[in-house]
Amino acid sequence: MSANTQIPSGLSNSNPAPVDRAKQCAAALLSERGEASGAQVARELHHLLRTLDADDRRSFQRYLATEFQPDQAALRAAAERYLADSTAEAAAALARVADPPRQELLRRLNMAPGGTGALIAMRSEITAHLRDEPELKLLDADLKHLFASWFNRGFLELRRIDWQSPAAVLEKLIAYEAVHEIKGWDDLRRRLASDRRCFAFFHPALPGEPLIFVEVALVQGLATAMPPLLARTTDEEATRAQAGRADTAIFYSISNCQDGLRGISFGNFLIKQVVEELKAEFPQLKHFSTLSPVPGLRRWLGQRLANGSDPDAALLPQLESDGWWNDQARSEKLRAPLLRLGARYLTRKPSIRIDPVARFHLGNGARLERINWLGNNTPRGIQESFGIMVNYLYDHDSIEHNHDAFVRDGIVVRSPEVDALLQS
Amino acid sequence: MSANTQIPSGLSNSNPAPVDRAKQCAAALLSERGEASGAQVARELHHLLRTLDADDRRSFQRYLATEFQPDQAALRAAAERYLADSTAEAAAALARVADPPRQELLRRLNMAPGGTGALIAMRSEITAHLRDEPELKLLDADLKHLFASWFNRGFLELRRIDWQSPAAVLEKLIAYEAVHEIKGWDDLRRRLASDRRCFAFFHPALPGEPLIFVEVALVQGLATAMPPLLARTTDEEATRAQAGRADTAIFYSISNCQDGLRGISFGNFLIKQVVEELKAEFPQLKHFSTLSPVPGLRRWLGQRLANGSDPDAALLPQLESDGWWNDQARSEKLRAPLLRLGARYLTRKPSIRIDPVARFHLGNGARLERINWLGNNTPRGIQESFGIMVNYLYDHDSIEHNHDAFVRDGIVVRSPEVDALLQS
Amino acid sequence: MSANTQIPSGLSNSNPAPVDRAKQCAAALLSERGEASGAQVARELHHLLRTLDADDRRSFQRYLATEFQPDQAALRAAAERYLADSTAEAAAALARVADPPRQELLRRLNMAPGGTGALIAMRSEITAHLRDEPELKLLDADLKHLFASWFNRGFLELRRIDWQSPAAVLEKLIAYEAVHEIKGWDDLRRRLASDRRCFAFFHPALPGEPLIFVEVALVQGLATAMPPLLARTTDEEATRAQAGRADTAIFYSISNCQDGLRGISFGNFLIKQVVEELKAEFPQLKHFSTLSPVPGLRRWLGQRLANGSDPDAALLPQLESDGWWNDQARSEKLRAPLLRLGARYLTRKPSIRIDPVARFHLGNGARLERINWLGNNTPRGIQESFGIMVNYLYDHDSIEHNHDAFVRDGIVVRSPEVDALLQS
Amino acid sequence: MSANTQIPSGLSNSNPAPVDRAKQCAAALLSERGEASGAQVARELHHLLRTLDADDRRSFQRYLATEFQPDQAALRAAAERYLADSTAEAAAALARVADPPRQELLRRLNMAPGGTGALIAMRSEITAHLRDEPELKLLDADLKHLFASWFNRGFLELRRIDWQSPAAVLEKLIAYEAVHEIKGWDDLRRRLASDRRCFAFFHPALPGEPLIFVEVALVQGLATAMPPLLARTTDEEATRAQAGRADTAIFYSISNCQDGLRGISFGNFLIKQVVEELKAEFPQLKHFSTLSPVPGLRRWLGQRLANGSDPDAALLPQLESDGWWNDQARSEKLRAPLLRLGARYLTRKPSIRIDPVARFHLGNGARLERINWLGNNTPRGIQESFGIMVNYLYDHDSIEHNHDAFVRDGIVVRSPEVDALLQS
Repeated sequence: MSANTQIPSGLSNSNPAPVDRAKQCAAALLSERGEASGAQVARELHHLLRTLDADDRRSFQRYLATEFQPDQAALRAAAERYLADSTAEAAAALARVADPPRQELLRRLNMAPGGTGALIAMRSEITAHLRDEPELKLLDADLKHLFASWFNRGFLELRRIDWQSPAAVLEKLIAYEAVHEIKGWDDLRRRLASDRRCFAFFHPALPGEPLIFVEVALVQGLATAMPPLLARTTDEEATRAQAGRADTAIFYSISNCQDGLRGISFGNFLIKQVVEELKAEFPQLKHFSTLSPVPGLRRWLGQRLANGSDPDAALLPQLESDGWWNDQARSEKLRAPLLRLGARYLTRKPSIRIDPVARFHLGNGARLERINWLGNNTPRGIQESFGIMVNYLYDHDSIEHNHDAFVRDGIVVRSPEVDALLQS
Repeated sequence: MSANTQIPSGLSNSNPAPVDRAKQCAAALLSERGEASGAQVARELHHLLRTLDADDRRSFQRYLATEFQPDQAALRAAAERYLADSTAEAAAALARVADPPRQELLRRLNMAPGGTGALIAMRSEITAHLRDEPELKLLDADLKHLFASWFNRGFLELRRIDWQSPAAVLEKLIAYEAVHEIKGWDDLRRRLASDRRCFAFFHPALPGEPLIFVEVALVQGLATAMPPLLARTTDEEATRAQAGRADTAIFYSISNCQDGLRGISFGNFLIKQVVEELKAEFPQLKHFSTLSPVPGLRRWLGQRLANGSDPDAALLPQLESDGWWNDQARSEKLRAPLLRLGARYLTRKPSIRIDPVARFHLGNGARLERINWLGNNTPRGIQESFGIMVNYLYDHDSIEHNHDAFVRDGIVVRSPEVDALLQS
Repeated sequence: MSANTQIPSGLSNSNPAPVDRAKQCAAALLSERGEASGAQVARELHHLLRTLDADDRRSFQRYLATEFQPDQAALRAAAERYLADSTAEAAAALARVADPPRQELLRRLNMAPGGTGALIAMRSEITAHLRDEPELKLLDADLKHLFASWFNRGFLELRRIDWQSPAAVLEKLIAYEAVHEIKGWDDLRRRLASDRRCFAFFHPALPGEPLIFVEVALVQGLATAMPPLLARTTDEEATRAQAGRADTAIFYSISNCQDGLRGISFGNFLIKQVVEELKAEFPQLKHFSTLSPVPGLRRWLGQRLANGSDPDAALLPQLESDGWWNDQARSEKLRAPLLRLGARYLTRKPSIRIDPVARFHLGNGARLERINWLGNNTPRGIQESFGIMVNYLYDHDSIEHNHDAFVRDGIVVRSPEVDALLQS
Repeated sequence: MSANTQIPSGLSNSNPAPVDRAKQCAAALLSERGEASGAQVARELHHLLRTLDADDRRSFQRYLATEFQPDQAALRAAAERYLADSTAEAAAALARVADPPRQELLRRLNMAPGGTGALIAMRSEITAHLRDEPELKLLDADLKHLFASWFNRGFLELRRIDWQSPAAVLEKLIAYEAVHEIKGWDDLRRRLASDRRCFAFFHPALPGEPLIFVEVALVQGLATAMPPLLARTTDEEATRAQAGRADTAIFYSISNCQDGLRGISFGNFLIKQVVEELKAEFPQLKHFSTLSPVPGLRRWLGQRLANGSDPDAALLPQLESDGWWNDQARSEKLRAPLLRLGARYLTRKPSIRIDPVARFHLGNGARLERINWLGNNTPRGIQESFGIMVNYLYDHDSIEHNHDAFVRDGIVVRSPEVDALLQS
């Protein structure tokens, strides 16, 4: 990319390399020039950044991360004043001085068209380098702080996604679906049929970009396995009738789309608002539940059984044998012990490392409702959790109680059915 | 609102007053319950707040302003650590701890529908009380800090307002026009005719609420007086033809609409983007200028002339006589000295208290282009500035230079014509 | 088009008058050139027509009306063939030949942007001249025939009009309201408040032009007088509460907007669809009724009472006295006889000349529900009908029966209350 | 619907078959009941029709075609009056009586939601039966007459279709593309890239249904072969740059979507308006041309060469040999004679049966610009026209002249290049 490398020493570089021009432009953006013509300077800077190669971009990111610190003398003075007299005003003054100029710079970068998207892409890009270049962590933290403010729930728009949505949005569902792969447009279409719903959050500054989306199936009774939910039916009449009969909404997939927004949580809000939307459209719906994977089960169980003294240690060789899930005789023998162990795994004190999917739904106030045998026999499902899938139930009236029990007291609220498994 | 004050000691208050319930709800919003059901708790809280009377609202605002401080022990520790070792990481940790929980609480209040509008209204309401109740200043500062982030230029949408706009938006123009009163719907319609343009910034969270709007007249040559701009013509053909002939866009009124957003500046961005829009629609436009009032002229001149030794002191009695502006003989005698004094007033070093309209446009990088005699002979125009109106010219190529000269060096860049006045 | 070179004197006029060029252009539009470039020729023609003055427009309209007849020889032949053998095919052939080229020309005129509006304006303009220039009647009939096809119910879009509607649409309500004058924007706003509804039909080819609109008040019980419906309330809360309590929708004004579409009926469809919309929005609504004027009452009664032998003849001088409607003593004496006479007037056999408002609603299947004393004491209300106003009730289950009784058997279906008046 | 009272056994069928109920409902729609509740009766009828099987639908269609004739006595009388005195008024009266009630019935059928689509589907369905059941021709002609009026150019909306369009619209492009098959979503996406354009006409009564669409490639110079136009590139930057460099727009595919609208021509309008749109978006475009198939070439040439005395008869066995188009040696020998014969075929007097694609473009006023060797070597391209593709050039300034020459004088206007082929 940059040419211009053989600059004879002693001569000033009158035609600086693009990355240097980008750095100068960033400095200008925070200067008076930025005040007069902020939006324009921001536009120029984004234009420059788009021409940089990966190395130059990294160099620019390091520059952002290491320059633009709070003024040290002022901050020391404010700290001393606060220690001398810890008033609210002194605290506020301290906060003001501690706010790094980098934050203001990032806010100004956002003023150009496409700025928000470019900042999200920047955070996505630095993720992979946080370990090697810890100085990037400050930039990462500042971006995360800004995004948490900008992507406040109050600024998000819930939109239904269906076959009337733009193809440009739909192809993003195919790309971002993280749980149950969407195999092309026909598969997508089935997931948007009349007995399905898909909702996403959008932000006004990223018009065609879903931030997170959830896929819902309208069914009768609690769905216990994925294959029926993903089977293709193309009969419009049948799917419409199915929607009319449904008493249960199954949230079978929820996917975050923007890596640069990781750590900003949308899922809890999304599920709860979608429950409201579905109730309004289908007053006859009685139950709202997920059908969720248990990604940490095999790892936990493997460690446990590897200890030969575990009473269930004998299961291990069978679990590692191939194809048992397609052999009813073999799989039936595993059913009872595995369901019991699954229940144990999911109800351990959350103080220990808990399954991430469980933590998410239990933390949202859902209840551990059912543990399903062979709910997902795809290679990934078997690999992660021996095919076990779980229903977490969202029951409006008990959400706050469940949440409190989980967060304050480390209690996993569960159905009698799960209790029975624990005692089996 | 409700009384309920005589609670016998020893009995718990099972039915607290609304303001107390609002305070409890605010505390809950920041607790675990807020994490589980944030959007819902926020909705409840806004609902409660709408039922409070003015006194209770003030009580709630004081509660917000005085509670929810940073943790004192933690902040002291962080301050000490920073003083011991002033690294970037220690500064960042300090900033994190200094960020008051109130900010997070305000962010959560924003999660409910209508939250942004309610927070803006809250800031508008406390303005009047900042002097009497200085503890509200912390709340005011936190709100302003949040708004500066949320109302970033990158999130604003420029929209043209015309006769196709919803009446609900148009009536807000009538209500908010701060410079040249709009006298009802017929007057408004004229200001939206084919040789006029009106643009406003909107924010997605306040869909029908303009934040700031500017009114533009498309004319031939620099307009020097208001009456022709405000005269009514209803002939659609004539206004269309006028737009086609225009070589100059006159920004004759710019009004902020949201008192709760004061201190967050939109005007600079608005003018500059409107210049872009107009250039795209009317490539033949050559000049972009304001026709602006000089609100501080009379006050300044009064003080100056009151000093009898001023060479112009003799003007004072004439200026204070009634109706001179309608009497050509008298007004012609005043023209030369007043234009000269106006030029003096507007070109003083900005380090002294400068006229606020001048500061705004000069700070944006505009040039002081013309000072016009009797450009506005309404009572208010006479009262403020003896009818003098000023053109500030926005010339793309010199904006940054003008801005730098003004901000760095205190120089008011001006046309030769103004220079001539100064030397007259 | 083409040049204008060297015309020897005395020769043909190569630079024809605009009206002649318009006629040539119309002829071209129906020729091969029209086939190759129809939309463009139509555009040219509309452009030419806009430059004509009233006389020239009339000349052009006469040209349209008298030229472009069916081919006489072909039509005679088709007529003879049909008379010789009256098959369906011969009838169809006859219809084909009888369809005048003018219809095709008008269809082609519609191909240009704005064409539909221009044709409606043309029909509106010729209305006033049909009596003097009967040859225009053929043009009028052809336009009406086309409009009846183009403005088919299936192509109309029902839209709610409220304070979010564009000012450009709202000002048309003010202009077109034909029953109860809208006195400016404040009055309009009240009619669009939360306890009011306004709906209009629009056609896609006339985007901002309502074709017909109806104003509805949501009230408790049958409204019997206009003043409460038109009184101004600006309290948003109160009107919202009122809408929530309402059990009755009163259609108090219905106005056609496009004179050029007279004879194409929209009102029946509008009322019936608005009933559906209101039921969906307010399931608690039980009654749908008009509050309507009786425009023919005074004329009928005057003729009747002028016959001195009528038993009510003595009423005449009182009715012609001034201000009785403001004098309770005088007006109370008139109440009983006038209500009785009103009931007589409205229930006469429809074979006689019936009141036009009554014919419209009874023909739509409404029932004559109530006759209200002093329901409208504006000068016009007194002048037309001594202030009497009538409720016509739209009751879904009896609409077809009422319509049949009225149309087939000349029976005005009415409430027991009206029956009682008749027997009083 | 009304009671079912006391039908003596053996008498009329009180529970008629759906098809009979549909016929009764159609009759009612044209009766007074239809006048009172037209939209509702139309809705009922469409509902009934949706439940009929194919045989019953045919029976209903025959019923529409054979009933609802003009009144024979009235039509005979009107014919006689016209023969007696052939005035314009008598002609108009005759036209009025000759208009069959079926037309009015079809207009009323259109009043229900979805009515227009259902009528189009009906015409589509009867197409296949017109030969066997000629009585359906009257119904077909009436539908066509109505559609010609309803789908007037003035009511069509041109819309660009791109990757932001709803998937529900895009899948219709895949389904309806009639010239160069779209092989799935990836292929479609390429056809909607930045150096491509796709436009369609829509009608307000069929919101998601394109009526006709055209696909355009933006290229440099006249494109002479399809493969480069259909090759996939996914590089967004490259396609954007290509669009910026283009000087020529190639209309490479135009497809009608609604079989029920056959005979109503949209293509001419579509091409001409798309030329306007493209000029506005890309002022640098100089040429607008098709790249079109020659579907009738092989048939014509086969017949000609089959006559052994034709000087080119020796070509026949080579043309019928397999794979010559992939064998440069063989194909080069065929090039010159086939291009010459292609030129002959396309420039024959249009009074003879002309190639339908040629007739369409020449009739629109295009010029026969180039005949391209092996422009389309797909099986279909070889089969139809030995791979020959043709450019028809749309040159604004000569369109009317070309059209006139073709339509009036049977002259195919062509480029010197084609002339040279003819003389080769």
